[in-house]
Amino acid sequence: MPDYGDKVSLVADVGGTNTRVALAEGRALRDESVRKFRNSDFESLESLLLQFEDDVGLTCDAAAVAIAGPVHDGRGTLTNLDWTVDPEALANVTGARTVSVLNDLQAQAHALLAMPRSHLTPVVTVESKETGSRRLVIGIGTGFNSALAIPNGPALMVTPSECGHVLLPAGNSEDLELAEFIVASEGFASVEDALSGRGLENIHAWHASRCGKSETRSSADVLTAIKNGDDVANRTLETFVRIMGSVCGDLALIHLPFAGIYLVGGVARAVAPYLRDFGFVESLRSKGRLSGYMERFPVCVVEDDFAALSGLAVHLDDLRRR
Amino acid sequence: MPDYGDKVSLVADVGGTNTRVALAEGRALRDESVRKFRNSDFESLESLLLQFEDDVGLTCDAAAVAIAGPVHDGRGTLTNLDWTVDPEALANVTGARTVSVLNDLQAQAHALLAMPRSHLTPVVTVESKETGSRRLVIGIGTGFNSALAIPNGPALMVTPSECGHVLLPAGNSEDLELAEFIVASEGFASVEDALSGRGLENIHAWHASRCGKSETRSSADVLTAIKNGDDVANRTLETFVRIMGSVCGDLALIHLPFAGIYLVGGVARAVAPYLRDFGFVESLRSKGRLSGYMERFPVCVVEDDFAALSGLAVHLDDLRRR
Repeated sequence: MPDYGDKVSLVADVGGTNTRVALAEGRALRDESVRKFRNSDFESLESLLLQFEDDVGLTCDAAAVAIAGPVHDGRGTLTNLDWTVDPEALANVTGARTVSVLNDLQAQAHALLAMPRSHLTPVVTVESKETGSRRLVIGIGTGFNSALAIPNGPALMVTPSECGHVLLPAGNSEDLELAEFIVASEGFASVEDALSGRGLENIHAWHASRCGKSETRSSADVLTAIKNGDDVANRTLETFVRIMGSVCGDLALIHLPFAGIYLVGGVARAVAPYLRDFGFVESLRSKGRLSGYMERFPVCVVEDDFAALSGLAVHLDDLRRR
Repeated sequence: MPDYGDKVSLVADVGGTNTRVALAEGRALRDESVRKFRNSDFESLESLLLQFEDDVGLTCDAAAVAIAGPVHDGRGTLTNLDWTVDPEALANVTGARTVSVLNDLQAQAHALLAMPRSHLTPVVTVESKETGSRRLVIGIGTGFNSALAIPNGPALMVTPSECGHVLLPAGNSEDLELAEFIVASEGFASVEDALSGRGLENIHAWHASRCGKSETRSSADVLTAIKNGDDVANRTLETFVRIMGSVCGDLALIHLPFAGIYLVGGVARAVAPYLRDFGFVESLRSKGRLSGYMERFPVCVVEDDFAALSGLAVHLDDLRRR
């Protein structure tokens, strides 16, 4: 087999606010090449990449972009920006022969096999973890989404999802009251309307309204208020973690990721220290006669902020070896 | 590439009540070899297969069994029978060198690429159907489950699920009342508790209780009462089809099966003629701002009762060609 270790990839992770760009050699990011740009300073991804070319250089044989939005026929559209990410345009600006556009959760999933243990914080440990099975990445940040990673020879096959948009499932009258509170302003209550930064704000506004207050707080303020022991913020966290456990449990039953559930994203990381004390595990396992079965799914939190870039490098390396 | 068309497979589909067994040449079932046995007449799958050997013969180089229950590490357990389906025992009794145990929905999914159009009844037609994308089989019969079929070279990779056991998602107070009615007797309300033969019975009992009646009917009786225009049965069907649309829509957002949703199973086939008139499509697409996006998913009903056997033959043929 030829050695692809010295091949250079360009990888870019386009978020809602910032874009991170780096060069990678084989599967390893060149640490000193990593740059972060504000999207609002550029009118397109191409102009942003030309800035990266000036700063670092663009010589590469393969290029991949992860975007926080749906990808269709290899073409991605960003929900809150006027950017389209297009394989042809990407090939033109980089000169790469191999190009790929993925959603951000797929990119994170491609990083899993190469991820050092030091980047993972366990939430549920399973003794005889089935490392040859599927893995599920669940992202909770600006939005909510997941990606399933299926072993396929030495590589992973990663399937996309738009699971943040499913119905927010109410299992009791409290959940239904929250769902109806969200429907009143949004017209529909999805999982993402509860489990995301905006979701924290929605749940907080609902708990405030139950206490007769009409109070809106940003998700950052809610997270600060939780640390300060604020009562409404505390109830917000309780509701958030309970719904998060239930939804993660449902996704586990749907995908059967016996090699692990990997929680990623800023909001997942922010609530991670509270998961065990606020009943995440009990809620995840509360599935009637399947409750015992649920103990088979390991859960951890990914602490690596650059996992999407690393995953893109792995993905391009897999494409080269095909 | 060698020609595997003359290789003989043994395929068996173990349901809750009956087991179907056949021989296949390459991907084609030998029609005259198909046999159906009552499980209660046998103490194990092996003794049933020995009966098939007496009737038809067992000479084969590969054998596969589909079971209506979870498969773990290649080993299957039937929920309502005391049978374990074991690759070693299967190899011993058949003499096959290649053996495989799948759940019944995975077997159905393997049949999709070879399925003649005449076996499919369209429910939602999409003009520019993306035949290169994923397919999702959703089974509604004795139980509820799904299997995702992902293109992988010339074959399909099929992932298992236990999605019938997720929380029955309530989106309004009527749904929550039904969920609480089910919780009162079962302790937990899962999707399968509403969308299955038993689910029809549960929904019927709930609608009867709302009318002040304490009435239990078998699912077969409910289906007959629907045909006869019975009022409670009619409401049962309305609720069933609405929840079915919502759950299928959620599974579509989770798996993004742009090449189609394939409904299989006895209950799915029984309600198929009513789907359009009872609002299945509207319910499937009722996903807030994603409603337009939902129009991309084709839906059809699989009418072939032998699809699981055909799928096993395809699967074994794929394994031979690896």
